[in-house]
Amino acid sequence: MTAKNMFIHHVYFWLKNPSNAGDRQKLVDGLTKLSSVKTIKMFHIGKPAKTSRDVIDTSYSISWMLIFDTPEDQESYQVDPIHLKFVEECSYLWSKVLVYDSVDAI
Amino acid sequence: MTAKNMFIHHVYFWLKNPSNAGDRQKLVDGLTKLSSVKTIKMFHIGKPAKTSRDVIDTSYSISWMLIFDTPEDQESYQVDPIHLKFVEECSYLWSKVLVYDSVDAI
Repeated sequence: MTAKNMFIHHVYFWLKNPSNAGDRQKLVDGLTKLSSVKTIKMFHIGKPAKTSRDVIDTSYSISWMLIFDTPEDQESYQVDPIHLKFVEECSYLWSKVLVYDSVDAI
Repeated sequence: MTAKNMFIHHVYFWLKNPSNAGDRQKLVDGLTKLSSVKTIKMFHIGKPAKTSRDVIDTSYSISWMLIFDTPEDQESYQVDPIHLKFVEECSYLWSKVLVYDSVDAI
């Protein structure tokens, strides 16, 4: 299935304490609450798979993949009160966050 | 919509000649052919969105996001003749490739 006309917002989180199960759960709980933002079409809360090759980065703690219909929907997500509350409540948990935003190439 | 029971294989390519439209098109064409691998449930060929914040990496050329039903489907994709041919024909185009594989965290 080709996926088109979408905005993919893929965020990778590195926890300050990656081996702390409680911290990991807090982030997952925060993302679960965050998923209620209305403009989100699809979301996935992930962790590194058990794959291993030179080109694979398995160092992150949690992956947060969101699909929006439009760039505007992603912009409105960024300033949604639910998102701002998530950042306020959970940002102390991570040491690094890396984002890749993609739109259709063709 | 929650997406569960999936394996997300997200690949970011940095082209050797990122400003060369022909090289970019060759990679897109190669990925389009590659998308015919049977175990792929959903694919998206992307380019950086016009977003800009410190945490966003916009330096890549092409994003290739695949969803599989299972880790085994992703393994079979890696050794699929169509995939091997893609690597053989297109790998000269990129200088760097970075992969994030994710499975359900919850």
